[in-house]
Amino acid sequence: MTTDNITTTEHEAITDLREHLRKIALIQHASTILSWDQETHMPSSGGAVRAEALGELAGISHKRAQDPALGESIERAEEAAHASGDEVLQAMVREVRHDYENTLKIPVEHATETAEVNSKSIQAWQQAREQDDFSAYAPMLTKQVELQKAEAGYLRDQEDCDYDVLMNKYERGMTSASFAAICRQVVPGLKEIIERVVARSLPEPEFFRGPWDKNRQLEFSKDVAKELGYDFSRGGLDLTSHPFCTSPVAPFDVRITTRVYEDNFTSNLYGVIHEAGHAMYEQGFDEKWIHTPLCDAISLGIHESQSRFWENDIGRTEAFWVHFLPQMKQYFPRILEDVSANDMAIAVNPVKPSLIRVDADEVTYGLHIALRFEVEQALFSGDLEVKDLPGAWNEKMQEYLGLTPPNFKDGVLQDIHWSFGAFGYFPTYLLGSLYSAQFHEAISQEIDIDQEVAAGRFSGIFDWLRERIHRQGRQFMPLDLLERAVGKGLDPAIFIDHLDRKVQSIHGV
Amino acid sequence: MTTDNITTTEHEAITDLREHLRKIALIQHASTILSWDQETHMPSSGGAVRAEALGELAGISHKRAQDPALGESIERAEEAAHASGDEVLQAMVREVRHDYENTLKIPVEHATETAEVNSKSIQAWQQAREQDDFSAYAPMLTKQVELQKAEAGYLRDQEDCDYDVLMNKYERGMTSASFAAICRQVVPGLKEIIERVVARSLPEPEFFRGPWDKNRQLEFSKDVAKELGYDFSRGGLDLTSHPFCTSPVAPFDVRITTRVYEDNFTSNLYGVIHEAGHAMYEQGFDEKWIHTPLCDAISLGIHESQSRFWENDIGRTEAFWVHFLPQMKQYFPRILEDVSANDMAIAVNPVKPSLIRVDADEVTYGLHIALRFEVEQALFSGDLEVKDLPGAWNEKMQEYLGLTPPNFKDGVLQDIHWSFGAFGYFPTYLLGSLYSAQFHEAISQEIDIDQEVAAGRFSGIFDWLRERIHRQGRQFMPLDLLERAVGKGLDPAIFIDHLDRKVQSIHGV
Repeated sequence: MTTDNITTTEHEAITDLREHLRKIALIQHASTILSWDQETHMPSSGGAVRAEALGELAGISHKRAQDPALGESIERAEEAAHASGDEVLQAMVREVRHDYENTLKIPVEHATETAEVNSKSIQAWQQAREQDDFSAYAPMLTKQVELQKAEAGYLRDQEDCDYDVLMNKYERGMTSASFAAICRQVVPGLKEIIERVVARSLPEPEFFRGPWDKNRQLEFSKDVAKELGYDFSRGGLDLTSHPFCTSPVAPFDVRITTRVYEDNFTSNLYGVIHEAGHAMYEQGFDEKWIHTPLCDAISLGIHESQSRFWENDIGRTEAFWVHFLPQMKQYFPRILEDVSANDMAIAVNPVKPSLIRVDADEVTYGLHIALRFEVEQALFSGDLEVKDLPGAWNEKMQEYLGLTPPNFKDGVLQDIHWSFGAFGYFPTYLLGSLYSAQFHEAISQEIDIDQEVAAGRFSGIFDWLRERIHRQGRQFMPLDLLERAVGKGLDPAIFIDHLDRKVQSIHGV
Repeated sequence: MTTDNITTTEHEAITDLREHLRKIALIQHASTILSWDQETHMPSSGGAVRAEALGELAGISHKRAQDPALGESIERAEEAAHASGDEVLQAMVREVRHDYENTLKIPVEHATETAEVNSKSIQAWQQAREQDDFSAYAPMLTKQVELQKAEAGYLRDQEDCDYDVLMNKYERGMTSASFAAICRQVVPGLKEIIERVVARSLPEPEFFRGPWDKNRQLEFSKDVAKELGYDFSRGGLDLTSHPFCTSPVAPFDVRITTRVYEDNFTSNLYGVIHEAGHAMYEQGFDEKWIHTPLCDAISLGIHESQSRFWENDIGRTEAFWVHFLPQMKQYFPRILEDVSANDMAIAVNPVKPSLIRVDADEVTYGLHIALRFEVEQALFSGDLEVKDLPGAWNEKMQEYLGLTPPNFKDGVLQDIHWSFGAFGYFPTYLLGSLYSAQFHEAISQEIDIDQEVAAGRFSGIFDWLRERIHRQGRQFMPLDLLERAVGKGLDPAIFIDHLDRKVQSIHGV
């Protein structure tokens, strides 16, 4: 058990609750492995049965998650947690209640259908993207929007609109009004930096084109992830087309995936650091709370703050290259012969409007999110129909980034998220950057980050995050967690200032 | 549906039965992926939860498999199949009945516990083997023997002894008396060949030691598997420590695994051909019967006949090297510069007693099986206790192969099978060789095998097997299938003659 000052009856109540949670988690464990396999190893001919199996497992775990016996167990656990006075235990039970209430609102048929449609839809999106055919994917996307509208309808409580309900699945407490306010502050700040830098920015250096041997890239990226703190003995790295991090069992089995190109090492290296950042979060949960909400991420914004922190605030600094360039030169001695840490820092921090979100630089990235946020809002408010999506997309692309996609796959079909029914998810990427900048500011008050990184010492930074963020699981709401960690609330100005300083130090403007 | 001359009611009965089977198959699909992942990608820290998840899934599928509603559905389907006069349909329903009756005999608790113990036991065996510590594994092995004795007790019907019940799980209709008779005929035949060849056998040629680049080995092995007929678009190849073939969904997703060493290319190449042979069997099931016993192997002996046929009767011939050596030379031009197809044929067909079954040559292999058969019989008759296993093993090793293992991992701990509770399984390996020799003889009457193989034409041979073996699924019992395919019953003399001729043609003695 997890706490000392409780009675045997209370102990039994918690043990009973945890047994319910374990039974649900084991089925979700199977689903997670099946989904991971679908994206990494499954031959496409296995797709139809895979979709059915995922639907079946979702049905089973959903039934277990809304079992009245679980409801009774929660009640007894609530009493026990209250009597114990243990705040961690209380938070755990509070979160179980939160999940239970939400699950109760969703019919098993809806959960099963959603899981099945998601699995099929990912496969349909992949095909449509390969064939650059939006109309082939539109019916599936329409189905996804309908399913998510239905889900918002089931879940809706005090939220203003369906889209707010969906946002809350990913970022507890966030609303479209708050996020719109954040965008109103962030977008002009980003645009100002972009204008300033783009005018002076250098072309991509010649050495960048490689060719970079794929196996060596993977070896180097692994070395980096390991040194930063990703524990390979509790995870693994596999190839996929759309990189992700997944947790079959947090904190014991947290895997990352990546892709690798010969003409561009940054996709692999920064992709691996990014996913390793996510994975270090989930590897950092307290294992004694396995299968409970305390071994789960509080929000995707906090999750994303961990990936962005390591990718951008550590990985894309000159200090990082002071430490890692000599190692990378061992893998690529010829290409990197005359390259310095400063060359690298400049090269990996371009500021240039581009079409693809996942390839966007740190500054223009936020504009990709503002675009998606507005498009999604419109889809769910009824102001926009799926068939008109490409037009709306291209219009906003022009407005925010001054570009027009030449095709669907570099435009509206580029992201995987909608294909698995994730709407309201994109805002968490920008929130992640905001949180990350605030963590960076707070850590800087205790640690000379550049000095530590340049010396290859990551443990001080790692431990700060592990203690204040990772170990907390879902104990505190995102904004509480932030305030406890850094001593202040969310402030987009810190993010903009942080970017501004970084751009000045690297590009001199 | 699958047949034309049946009524709507009959059609509905079959459809209902297939829906039951589908619901069971989806859970088994998840289990298969979880087991595959456990052997290929799972970090060891994920092992404890994995074992629990596999136990949980086994419980669910076992419950579904003994659902009384399934029993009623089978009854209606039996009537429908009888009325239809369709023999294939009748065979399908007969096999569903067979599985249902067996499942009914096994309590859910036993199925769940067995799945959990298997998952843990595989992990324990791996550790014990690494540490060469039999006593660390002995308690788990004792548990496995107990569980399998209990299972035999549940299943036992008209069989003479528990061990016969277990043998029947893998080879329908086989008894220890019949297998002992086969051994009495095969063992002296093998010993005679061994004595004759060993006296004259050549040392391993120098080029054999490589070093063979691992990636190139994998590429070449893939080329070979593809050319022989393994369909990678319905499967995949992954690395593991103990190679196997697994079917998440036959015939749509049938995967193989392999290992690769720098100082020995045969382990990878012949391992891949072997597993591809297994996989081609399952890829050959008739997809319209998905999730039914007609998309399942009739026995492991027949399964093994397919792997051994391609590995030994095709892969280890001079004709094979006439065709494939030029391709292999492209991967390893330096090492193979002066090597001829005949050199290869001699080199890949050593005859030499050795300690490790999976590395044993085609002739000595049968002796490893005879040893295991006798040891297992003694374990289940009560003549041998687990603690005395290493002694019994070493004694028989001396008797059959004239060798004494220097440690446990090259002796009694070498095989994975007992760790997943498979006793009575080893005999199917020898049966596979017997069947394979008879298939070879029958095909030779229609096709000049050497001529086709040397020309790189595999489709005639492949189609013969696909039509007469693969497509049949579980329609016929193993010995019926054999007789239908080759026109005669099981005859160990054909295997011995076949080996004898091969050894003479290659080694000249």
